[in-house]
Amino acid sequence: MTAQTVATTLRSLINDRLKELLPKREGIHFLLFEGAHYSLTLPGKRLRPLFLLSVLKDYSIPLEKGLDIACALEMIHTYSLIHDDLPCMDDDDLRRGKPSLHKVYGEGQAVLVGDFLLTYAFEILASSDAPKEVIQIIAKASGGHGMIGGQLVDILFEGKEIDWNILKFMYLGKTAALFAASLECAAIISGAIQDERTALKEAGEYFGIAFQMEDDILNVTSDVETLGKPIGSDKEKNKSNCISLFGKDKSIEIAKEYKIRALDALPSHCQNIYNLIRG
Amino acid sequence: MTAQTVATTLRSLINDRLKELLPKREGIHFLLFEGAHYSLTLPGKRLRPLFLLSVLKDYSIPLEKGLDIACALEMIHTYSLIHDDLPCMDDDDLRRGKPSLHKVYGEGQAVLVGDFLLTYAFEILASSDAPKEVIQIIAKASGGHGMIGGQLVDILFEGKEIDWNILKFMYLGKTAALFAASLECAAIISGAIQDERTALKEAGEYFGIAFQMEDDILNVTSDVETLGKPIGSDKEKNKSNCISLFGKDKSIEIAKEYKIRALDALPSHCQNIYNLIRG
Repeated sequence: MTAQTVATTLRSLINDRLKELLPKREGIHFLLFEGAHYSLTLPGKRLRPLFLLSVLKDYSIPLEKGLDIACALEMIHTYSLIHDDLPCMDDDDLRRGKPSLHKVYGEGQAVLVGDFLLTYAFEILASSDAPKEVIQIIAKASGGHGMIGGQLVDILFEGKEIDWNILKFMYLGKTAALFAASLECAAIISGAIQDERTALKEAGEYFGIAFQMEDDILNVTSDVETLGKPIGSDKEKNKSNCISLFGKDKSIEIAKEYKIRALDALPSHCQNIYNLIRG
Repeated sequence: MTAQTVATTLRSLINDRLKELLPKREGIHFLLFEGAHYSLTLPGKRLRPLFLLSVLKDYSIPLEKGLDIACALEMIHTYSLIHDDLPCMDDDDLRRGKPSLHKVYGEGQAVLVGDFLLTYAFEILASSDAPKEVIQIIAKASGGHGMIGGQLVDILFEGKEIDWNILKFMYLGKTAALFAASLECAAIISGAIQDERTALKEAGEYFGIAFQMEDDILNVTSDVETLGKPIGSDKEKNKSNCISLFGKDKSIEIAKEYKIRALDALPSHCQNIYNLIRG
């Protein structure tokens, strides 16, 4: 199988399971589940769950052992996009080429749908075979010193000067932490030795930084059709990121460097996750 | 010890542990933890954690076995207050006698502090001795068919006619589910037999309905100093609740009836939780 076929197969496995896991759109509160369906079925790359399953494949572990955990990761990622898009945060009207959730269902419901996906992710984790350590790692990565802490720095530094240390802290939190958790949890489920677990976590951190830099770069170089959200919006909002600090060319260079670091960190037998990161 | 002394002792145990659990207010994202401190140290009754610990006392189980789970429940309750107070939800400027979090730290930060407390609660649960079933029950009670579902119905039915079935659904979700989870989890930790576990869960549901009705009643009968939030705000916002459906007198009657049901449901040896519910 080519690398692309592997990713496509895994992605359809993830999408099928996500559909199974989402509650039926019924009850007087059906709009909550409508909103969750809306956000979760927008065309996404499913990178975080793909990362987890690719490592399982590398360790020849049955994918069912990680599928629900993978879906929980995608739910947490999706909740973060819904809350980040709110007018009081990044104020983004487009997401994955469609109107953001709050543009369709209103802000109150968008807050609640985000809360629901986050809470539901933990319900799924607690109902899965995952050891409690996996739940702990994912909660930490999504928490105050991870995703939420990074997002706070993002909104606090709008229009302010930022240095590379603060920027790395922000990238590590808002983006890299969940990638690192995906790979570390995959290592735990796979019974990897401690060295490989540490290596996979590090690879996730390096990749996450590269990925967020590429995202910032695309915000100035892509077009709205490809990106699915407005171009140049970061500059308009006075976002402090690698573009505002380094400019485009140096940012491209540093992002490449971090991607290489991620690839170098991977245990040598991890071909599937290697292919996925190399892209 | 009198019932009041027991509650006071337990409450100070909870407050001390909450302070220990909250992250230090340091790092460039210190404002996140500031906000969490602000909300979590407002004078609250700590009812949900008190419920859990009272049952443990009734079963002569060491309180340490449930203390962190109790604190996680209070964090989840506090996150829900922060998000519910947002302008896009209930738009409440006062909470527990002080400005709501978003009035002090802004809306974006209020969303994030709420997200943080919810996520951190699950980190604490996953790091505690709690069996995974406890995490699952708490996630379910806080989720789409519990707290979040109830809150959605609350905002959807503003200014609309509501019947007793829908209102009960709303009360069960937004308020009773977490009380029921507190008591059910306490039963699990205490190793209670299935019948008593079911009974405690039911008592939590009955009490939660009575408690939310009393809250709605206080909104028309109390004063801003006692209540810590504006009086008559429900009517101003066209909230559909027991007052709009039944009027004050019949609401008082039904609330009393539900409180009696809660007391009747309790296993006979549960004196501490009996005293707490009787008030």
